[in-house]
Formats: sequence, C-alpha cells, structure tokens
Amino acid sequence: MKGFAMLGIGNTGWIEKDKPVCGPMDAICRPLALAPCTSDVHTVWAGAIGDRHDLILGHEGVGEIVEVGSLVKDFKVGDKVLIPAITPDWNSKEAQAGFAQHSGGMLSGWKFSNIKDGVFGEFFHVNDADGNLALLPDGMDLGTACMISDMVPTGILGAEMADVQFGDTVCVIGIGPVGLIAVAASAIRGASDIYAVGTRPNCVQVAKDFGATEIINYKKGDIVEQVLELTKGYGADRVIIAGGDNDTFDQAVRMVKPAGKISNVNYLGEGDYIKIPRVGWGVGMGHKQIIGGLMLGGRLRMEKYAKLIKTGRLNPGKLITHKFNGFDKVEEALLLMRDKPSDLIKPVVIL
Amino acid sequence: MKGFAMLGIGNTGWIEKDKPVCGPMDAICRPLALAPCTSDVHTVWAGAIGDRHDLILGHEGVGEIVEVGSLVKDFKVGDKVLIPAITPDWNSKEAQAGFAQHSGGMLSGWKFSNIKDGVFGEFFHVNDADGNLALLPDGMDLGTACMISDMVPTGILGAEMADVQFGDTVCVIGIGPVGLIAVAASAIRGASDIYAVGTRPNCVQVAKDFGATEIINYKKGDIVEQVLELTKGYGADRVIIAGGDNDTFDQAVRMVKPAGKISNVNYLGEGDYIKIPRVGWGVGMGHKQIIGGLMLGGRLRMEKYAKLIKTGRLNPGKLITHKFNGFDKVEEALLLMRDKPSDLIKPVVIL
Amino acid sequence: MKGFAMLGIGNTGWIEKDKPVCGPMDAICRPLALAPCTSDVHTVWAGAIGDRHDLILGHEGVGEIVEVGSLVKDFKVGDKVLIPAITPDWNSKEAQAGFAQHSGGMLSGWKFSNIKDGVFGEFFHVNDADGNLALLPDGMDLGTACMISDMVPTGILGAEMADVQFGDTVCVIGIGPVGLIAVAASAIRGASDIYAVGTRPNCVQVAKDFGATEIINYKKGDIVEQVLELTKGYGADRVIIAGGDNDTFDQAVRMVKPAGKISNVNYLGEGDYIKIPRVGWGVGMGHKQIIGGLMLGGRLRMEKYAKLIKTGRLNPGKLITHKFNGFDKVEEALLLMRDKPSDLIKPVVIL
Amino acid sequence: MKGFAMLGIGNTGWIEKDKPVCGPMDAICRPLALAPCTSDVHTVWAGAIGDRHDLILGHEGVGEIVEVGSLVKDFKVGDKVLIPAITPDWNSKEAQAGFAQHSGGMLSGWKFSNIKDGVFGEFFHVNDADGNLALLPDGMDLGTACMISDMVPTGILGAEMADVQFGDTVCVIGIGPVGLIAVAASAIRGASDIYAVGTRPNCVQVAKDFGATEIINYKKGDIVEQVLELTKGYGADRVIIAGGDNDTFDQAVRMVKPAGKISNVNYLGEGDYIKIPRVGWGVGMGHKQIIGGLMLGGRLRMEKYAKLIKTGRLNPGKLITHKFNGFDKVEEALLLMRDKPSDLIKPVVIL
Repeated sequence: MKGFAMLGIGNTGWIEKDKPVCGPMDAICRPLALAPCTSDVHTVWAGAIGDRHDLILGHEGVGEIVEVGSLVKDFKVGDKVLIPAITPDWNSKEAQAGFAQHSGGMLSGWKFSNIKDGVFGEFFHVNDADGNLALLPDGMDLGTACMISDMVPTGILGAEMADVQFGDTVCVIGIGPVGLIAVAASAIRGASDIYAVGTRPNCVQVAKDFGATEIINYKKGDIVEQVLELTKGYGADRVIIAGGDNDTFDQAVRMVKPAGKISNVNYLGEGDYIKIPRVGWGVGMGHKQIIGGLMLGGRLRMEKYAKLIKTGRLNPGKLITHKFNGFDKVEEALLLMRDKPSDLIKPVVIL
Repeated sequence: MKGFAMLGIGNTGWIEKDKPVCGPMDAICRPLALAPCTSDVHTVWAGAIGDRHDLILGHEGVGEIVEVGSLVKDFKVGDKVLIPAITPDWNSKEAQAGFAQHSGGMLSGWKFSNIKDGVFGEFFHVNDADGNLALLPDGMDLGTACMISDMVPTGILGAEMADVQFGDTVCVIGIGPVGLIAVAASAIRGASDIYAVGTRPNCVQVAKDFGATEIINYKKGDIVEQVLELTKGYGADRVIIAGGDNDTFDQAVRMVKPAGKISNVNYLGEGDYIKIPRVGWGVGMGHKQIIGGLMLGGRLRMEKYAKLIKTGRLNPGKLITHKFNGFDKVEEALLLMRDKPSDLIKPVVIL
Repeated sequence: MKGFAMLGIGNTGWIEKDKPVCGPMDAICRPLALAPCTSDVHTVWAGAIGDRHDLILGHEGVGEIVEVGSLVKDFKVGDKVLIPAITPDWNSKEAQAGFAQHSGGMLSGWKFSNIKDGVFGEFFHVNDADGNLALLPDGMDLGTACMISDMVPTGILGAEMADVQFGDTVCVIGIGPVGLIAVAASAIRGASDIYAVGTRPNCVQVAKDFGATEIINYKKGDIVEQVLELTKGYGADRVIIAGGDNDTFDQAVRMVKPAGKISNVNYLGEGDYIKIPRVGWGVGMGHKQIIGGLMLGGRLRMEKYAKLIKTGRLNPGKLITHKFNGFDKVEEALLLMRDKPSDLIKPVVIL
Repeated sequence: MKGFAMLGIGNTGWIEKDKPVCGPMDAICRPLALAPCTSDVHTVWAGAIGDRHDLILGHEGVGEIVEVGSLVKDFKVGDKVLIPAITPDWNSKEAQAGFAQHSGGMLSGWKFSNIKDGVFGEFFHVNDADGNLALLPDGMDLGTACMISDMVPTGILGAEMADVQFGDTVCVIGIGPVGLIAVAASAIRGASDIYAVGTRPNCVQVAKDFGATEIINYKKGDIVEQVLELTKGYGADRVIIAGGDNDTFDQAVRMVKPAGKISNVNYLGEGDYIKIPRVGWGVGMGHKQIIGGLMLGGRLRMEKYAKLIKTGRLNPGKLITHKFNGFDKVEEALLLMRDKPSDLIKPVVIL
C-alpha cells in the first residue's frame, strides 16, 4: 500500500509498505478524511521525537473499517469511525490509574506516527478497537469529525486541567487550533472573562466567536502587564498555555492569581528547562499549580465530544480554513501546515 | 420602620419594627429591588420552618447601604449592593471546612427571614458586610440583579454538586426558576444533552433558550422510562432535582447511570423519609452518589455570577415574568408566588 | 473437573464440570488458597442475585497459572497470583469513565460466582489476565493474600468513598471483616477518632488493634445518641456503613455532620427502599453526601494493597480466625461463614 | 513590653515596644511556650522578606489569653490556646475561594514576624480570635503543642498537596522538622513505601520512627538514580520537597512517574528561577503536576491536628531535641536554629 511518510529528519515522501496486520482486538481502517497536525511538522522538520525512517505520518482522521479482529465486539467491517490521535492500552496499570495516555511509559499511548505508522496510509491499524474507536455520527461533516481526533480533546484537556470554575477569568495563551478549542471549552466550562492572546485576524475572529471577551496582542506590550491591568492587579484565575515556548511559563506564573492554575497543552519542542520565576511563584508557597498533559484518547471521550458537536455546544468546523480533495493532497496539506500562511488555521483532506 | 412579615403560620401583614442596629462588621441597607421566593411561601403557608411571629420575610434583593460598621473596609454608605440569600459567618469552623452555609449548625448561614428579619423591610441588616456584600455592577438591571441573591447560586449549585463533565447527559427535574438556572448552568458546565422535565409553556420556552435539548413531559408517561429510552437504556450521567417531592429521588436513582450523580437543590417540605430504591441503587454498590445542598452565599460567588451575567454567559433576566413598582407591591408579588398562575416564573418588585 | 457449587437457592454441593477454556487475553488458574465470603452466603441461602443452577461459588483466593492466552504479556504458566473478586473489562466505556467495576452494566465487573463460575473449582478462568492478575509477593502468607481479593479492597473503598481527611472523626458501622479493614483504612487515611460499632469480642479486639479509639455497643443504647454525645452534638465527619440493613442509613444520616459523608460498602440484600430521614438530611440541603460502591478490582490496586501489607501499614492476616487445609474443606468453611459462630471473623482454606 | 526582634538584616536584639492593642475581633496573649523556625533565620540572616527594623520575631508558640475583643464569642481571658503561624482574614474573598493563607494577597495570611510583630514578645496580638485560636487540649505537652503552629500543618500540607493515595510510593526530599512530619503524614495518608532523603542520624532515626521505609543518602549517589532503582525504573508516585533549593525541582520531576505529583513546602530563599527539565516533564505533556503552598492556618485545622496527636496518630514531640526554660532563652534557641548543630531537629522554649 501507499503512504505519505517521514523519510528522515527534514524529508518526506510517498512510500510503499505492506498493509498492516490485524490482531484479535484490532481493526484495520482506510481513511475517509485526514488532517495534518503541527506535531507532524515538529516530528519531520524539528526532529522532535528523534530520527525516523519511512514512518507513515498522521494521527488525525476519520476512517472506514475494512477488517476487524475476532475479539472485537462493537464494530464491524464497513463501519465509519472516529479515530483518536492517542490509542491507549486500556488494560495497562497506567490506564487503571486514570492516565491511559501514559500506558506503557510516558506518552506511549501516542502510537500513530510515533511508535507505529500513522493514518496517512491507504490503510492503518487501530489497536484495541472496542476501546479506541467510536461510530461516526450520522450526518457529521467529515472535516469536523477529523477535529475530534486531536484538536478537540487537546483543547478540552486544557480547560479540564486548568479546572475552570463558574465565573473564572481565564487567559488562553496561543490561539492556533488547540488554543481556540481551549477558548471554546473554557466558555462551556463556566468561565466568564476569557482573554485570548494572539494576533492573526482569522484566529482572533474565531476566538471571539468561541467566547473570548478580550484579545490580548503581545505586540502591543507585555502580556503579563495587560492581564494584570485587565484584572485590576489580581491576575487571572486560570491560564491555559497553547502556544509559545519554555519562557511562556514565566509569564503564565506571573499573570495568574495566588492559588490559580496553569495548564499546558503545548508541545515543548526545544530547550533544556522551563523556567518558573521564584518570586512570582510565591517563593514556593503561592499555591500556583502547574500541569501539562497529553489528551487521553479512547472511545468514551470521542463519543462525548461528538455529542457536544451534535448539540451545538462546540463547533470545531470553524477551525477549518483549507479543504482539499483526494488522498494525494495530504502532502500539500502538510506543507501548508509547515509554512503556516497567515490565513491558515487548520486544513483537512477529504478522500 | 415598616416591613412585610409573617404574623404566624398562614398569615402575613405589614408591621412596624425598630430599624436594625449595625454592629462593627455589619451594614444596614434599604432595598432597591426585591423578589419573593417559593421558600417564603413554604415558610408562611406550610409552616416549613415552624411558627414565627412578626418575622419580616424575604431574602432576595438589591440594596443601598445606609450605614456601615466601623470595621467594614470595602463598603461605604451609598454603595449599591448585591445581597446573597445566605450570609454565613466566615470566621466559623464550618466555613473553614468549606461549608460556610452551615456555619453555626446545619443551614444556619440562612439568616434572612429565618433566624432574623428578612429584606422586605424599609431597612435590613447584613452581617459581615465585607464577606457578604458585592457591588452592584454598573448598568446591571435591578431585576436581574435580584436573581443573584438565590436563583442563580442555587441553580448553579445544582450543576456543581452534580459535577457535570464535558459531554454529559443531564436530566433536570423541575423547571421553575431554580431548575431553569440549573439547565443554563449545565450548558455552561459542559453538558451536551440536557433533558428538562416540566410542562408549563413559559418554562419550557426558557428551558430551550437556556440550552435544554429535550423536554420531558411527565404527563405523557413515566419520566424514568422516557430518560432510559432517550439514552438507549444507559441512563443519564447526572440528575439535578429542582422540583418534585421525596419520591422524586426514587425516579432519579432509577434514571441515572451506574456511577452517576444526583444533586438536589429542592427544599423538601414534608414527609418523613426520602426513598432510595434498593435495587436501582445497585443493592448498595452502584456508585450512584446522592447529595443535596444549600447555596453557599458570600461575596466572592456573587461577584463571579455577576461576571457571568455581564459576559453574557447567563441571562437570568429571562426568568422575570412579572414586574411591580413600589415597596407596597411586595405583598402582591408574594401572593402571586403563592398562587402560581400558569404564566409565572418569577416576579420582582422595583422600589 | 470438580467444583463446589450452588445447585439452586438454599442448596450447595460438589459438581463435575468441564475445565474452563482460555481465550487469547485470559488465564486459567488452579487455587492455592481460598476463602468464602458473606456474599456467597447471600447468593446461596438468600437467593440475593436470583436462582442459579450448578454455579461454582467463590471469588476470594490465590492461584497458580496453568494456562495463559497468546496475547497475555506479563504472566506465564507457573506464576503464583493474587486474584481480585472483581475482574473488569478494562476496554469498556465504563472503565474509561473510571468505574470499571460497572463495565458492561451495573456491577458487571463482578463475574466470579455471579455471571460465570467462581474460584471454588479445581481450575478457574480469569479474563484480561494482564489487567486483572498480580504476582503473589515473595513470602506473603497465603491466607493474608486471600484477603486482597475482596476484604482489603472493599474496606479501603469504604474509607476512600468517605473521603476521610486528616483529623476526621469516623464512625464505622459494622465490624465484620470488611468493617474492620475500613477501620484500619481510616486510620491510615488520616482519621483521628474512629468509632467502631459492634459487640463481638474478637471483632472488638481487632478493631482496637486496627486503630478504633472507641467501641460503640448498639445493645447499650441508640448509636446515634452515642455518637452525638461523643462528638458534643456535632456528629461524626464521616460514616462508613459495613453492616446493618436499609434502616442503617437513617442512623448514619442523623449521626453525620452537615457536609459530612456517608459511604456504604454493605451489600443490601433485601427490602424495597433505603430510608433517608428528611429532617436529618437538612430538608434536602444539608450537604450530607451518600454513596455506596463496589470494589474496583484489577491489577494496579492489588499491587498497591500488597505493598501496604508488605510495609506493615495494614495487617489483614488478623482477620483470619479459622484455617482449613485441603480443597474439600471449602464446604466446611462456607457453612461456617453461613452459621457465623461467635468467634468467627474470617476462615481460609489452604490447598 | 519586651520582645526579641530583628533590628535589621543580620541583626537581632531585645527591644521595648508598646503592648499591642486589641480590636473587637482580636485577642492579646502572653506566651507559654515558643519555638524558633528556620523561616526566622531566613528572615534575619538572609533578608528573605526584605529589610525590617525592630520587628519582633517568632510565629510558633502556645499562649494564654490576657485580653479579648468585645465580639469574640468562643474565647475568654485565661484560656490557654494553640496559635497558628498563619492567621488569615476569613472574611476575605481568598478565604471564600478556599485559600485563606493568601487573604489580601499572596502569602498575606502570614502576619506574625512578617507584616506585624511576632510571638517572641511579652504579649502578642492575634487577629480574628474565633477563627484563629484553638483551646490547648488538657494535658498536652507545651513543646508538642508548639509544633501545631507550623511544623505539623506544613508537613501535613506536603502530603495533602501531593495527594497521597493508598499504596503510593512517596519520596520526601529533606528531613528537617517539616520533612519529618511530611513522612509521618504520608504514612497516615496511605503511603506504603516512603523514601526519606537525608543524612543526619537524629533525623534519620525519627524518619524511620515516623514510617520511612528507605533512607536515601544524597552523599552516596544521585538521588534520582536511587529512586529509579528502588522503583524498578517506574519512579515514585509522589514527591514532597521539604528541603534543597531551586534545583531540587529538576530532581523531583525526573524521579516522579508520569502523572505523578510534586508538592513543595520548602521556602525558596534565593535564585531567580526554578528549573523544570523539559524532557523529564514529558515535553510539556507528562501530567507531572507541580504545586507549592503555604499552610492554611486557622482554628479548625489546629483542632484536627490536636486530635491526631491525642489519638496517637502523630507524635511531633519527637522533633524536639533541645528544650530551654525562660523567655530570655528565645535568643539562644534562635541562634541554635541558625547554627544547626548536627544533633538539632527542633528547639523549644518553655516559659
């Protein structure tokens, strides 16, 4: 079969591989829609997870089952399915501890385009089909459905780890597709004021549509000072980091209230240390909680997020700025993601 | 001063009383707007908290400060203020345990029209002004502001105790004013499907406006069966009880999923026992959590809820179906609450 | 193979059955030690889960693996293993929601001696071996190890659901083996005062050894009054129900503080309704949380509880009052459990 | 009155001051027993909170009330009382949010020897007496009672913020008095294995008495490697930092499991940044939660901790290695704390 792969750091191309083999608990799918992710860009051009050769890329998509294992109970050939970027081993001790995304070691629920071939192939393999697939709801737009793989669960995780409460003031740093979902998720988690830090007009518009009450432009001054001014010196209740770099944590700590919470969903691609300012962190005693996590994955959450879309609470279709048709357009979509033209939020490829 | 009072069980009337005395931590206010509550009806006509003589009624309102104690730091004479129905002793051990509403004993944060005169007087007394008042936001409608006293925090408490999660299916039983806010609060707490149980057209319309996705009419069949049918036999994730009686818990337990949560914000006025069905409750092992609570009160939450209204997340003004003008209309508004004409949701009196 | 079975309600006996078949994820074990449980008594003589014919009994034991499925990664033939009474489907949506014990429906993680043959056979079947077995630690006493199947996790669940905090006063109602572990678990969860309600001298002694600070004898007066007197009228912070019947909840609600928590781990075998006193429950607003649950099961928790025993924090071996030798003594041990002689806490059978 | 004070950075001495004035909510006490704290040393010799002149030191002690405000309900002249190091404004919004220690701004519940005179005077002032004092239990040793001011609540906070669960492996870095209480608190919070990092023989002995199962000597190799070896590469479930410096966080992150929790109770006296290793922190997605906090203070917790001591769960008297008699020995005790002779854990002064 054909697949679009990382050939080595900095190189991509189409390759031929054997069709994946289906174990008793697994499913083999063919893609119906696919989306590239900034992580794919990090993987290929920054070498963020190390060098890989002939690894098929991609972890966002919607598929149709073409083969199922003998022990799979809830899915059959022909089912159209949602697919999560993270496909944990639910039987693991980490899953039993509530952190299936780290099954078998830190981040090892992340299998597609990391420890096995991703979804940018004519066929792809899904482990633990009963636990990791969900039926595509009738009538759901395929592009929107692709957003359930990664953008929606990651953005929602941002709001969940930040533990947003009714009436909270939340600052979302970075309003690419994940940050935008974090804005939307904060709004339907009970936030009142939502400050979105970003500048690109497309993103700013969607941030407002999703519930941002204030746009903070980092080009117009220090974002910490802007947040402190907006909050009369108190600071934000919660900060969600969905962009920036290691130094963003310094800002986040200084703009959050004592006993506030900082939640990171940004993949930190380089540098040795994240810096936490000692004084801003209350000399170790300010109760400013810091956590960063990976989306959980699995069937239950995909079903729940699909219901959020169906009932109109969340509209991730608004993220999609570029639509392509045909499997071979995966390459163009990925390069677009790499080059980030100013009008891009998220591309999808419909097959 | 003049006040509208409970004279004894089943009797109300206007009385004369001394103006309340202001302690060093306290404030004396005059009302700017007032709203009667179903609890006032229970108190007077059902004798729900026992007999009381010449007790000024009312615990929902907005006021202007006419006197402040010497130790009050954040408020001054002339300030227009939000007033919570529950005004705890924040210094108490119960408050330190996180349950200020039970300061000094179960429900004893409930002082107005219970253990001291309520707000239906020319003046009323607020204990711990710094902890229990909040500034009326500029431009906020006075009727809407009255909803922050009790309807908003009680409805929100329903969603909080139910611990609504992203994508949950929530059933709200009873869509009077508190149930309607519980619907709205569930929607901004992350629920996807919200089933509202009720029949009155006005309430049904507001429920839909607030985010209900399904209206369940108890006149058209057993509500448990309707919920099970809508959820394909699984049951709801969460149930919020905002109406009904002791037997409603039997229904709630049977319609909620294993490991689901049931939250009660309905004042249970009569009967000896709430009945929990043994089998429906998993013979004691179904993890169906049951809790019922009183709103917390205090300044912080009023400020947060005011922000929810200001940012447009919540619009409790939609509850107000009847508006009166003048202090003497408090009587008419209360009788309306007692008689519950079919078009009533909530009346307010503007002074 | 031979097994000790329920023949029908009220009847037990030895039967012959085919050896169970091992699926790819499963293991087949032979027992090394076994223990009967009060639940077995309920199942047979009270018909608590309905009529069953030729169902092999038992869900507490330690075994040796004689066969493993092809997909099992962490266990091999000859391994000596701990076995939980509850063996969930970890791939299920319920497990993904954190409640694996209800995988596939309420209580359906309870498979042994309920929906399939139990452990009182020459061989028994364990589903999802990697998720549901744990290695028997070197040198652990077999009788003690049997307590990890059910008594330890159920007693610990009692303290977990009660959410015991540092310095709390906890009342444990019922000090059979589960209640005794709940006493011990409360002590190592941070409780200060622990009141144990019971009378049998053996149990009273172990309760004291496990950390009870006060023994409450229900024969010497109303237990609610005794608790209120000991707490100067405040009530207990937490109540764990590990014995009694539906009416015990009435007592629990009245003896717990406002905002206190009630946790049930008692199997409620008969009656239609559990009764919650309306006034004692704060007319629906007292924040007295009620929950009852089934132990979770699975590998992670067995490993954690084995570590608690190994480090000396917990000593469930003290529960064992009667020790038998030989598979055929399972019958005698079960009848002992049914007849409950006054010196019995828990019997075990070593093979 | 006389008091032992910081005269300026690096200087201490006895000074004369006016007796403090008692407000309506307050109490004035005279000390019965006092203890110096490492924080006093930081304040004076490191200038950690900036320069101060003639500020009476001390925030650990037991006292007798000599004057009470007119609004104080639960205490009277002559009462012997426990005093917390942190005395919040319970009426504040921060307290209503559950973080009274930050009332009025980050750390501002810390008043003694910070924003007002401390307890090393002939008299000292306690704000909000009803909320911030607790009766000294009959028969409690005065030295032990001093440990309730700061050592006990701070060590317990370490275990609480680390969210220790049944059977967890906990690593406590630093076994001075606070770290030792963190060891004890972990043991009564459900930990199984407790690794204590330290070397001084006195401290090591108390750590073992308090429940440490392993002593890790940082002089014998990298502590991260030692923890990973002990946990077979998995890492600890929880890490409590009670000593070290900014770089200790690097170690803590690398020794904790994915989804583990790190809790800091160490006052970080110098340096600009705490360093979080990017890769060890899962490139921002490892779910390794980091929090550092200040003890809460207040009456309820002191009462609860006193009960833990009374029931024998906790024995902080073991921390006391040096006992002095007479108010004038406060100076010697503080200098001892500064010089930290190898046999010192904690000194107390009995008056």
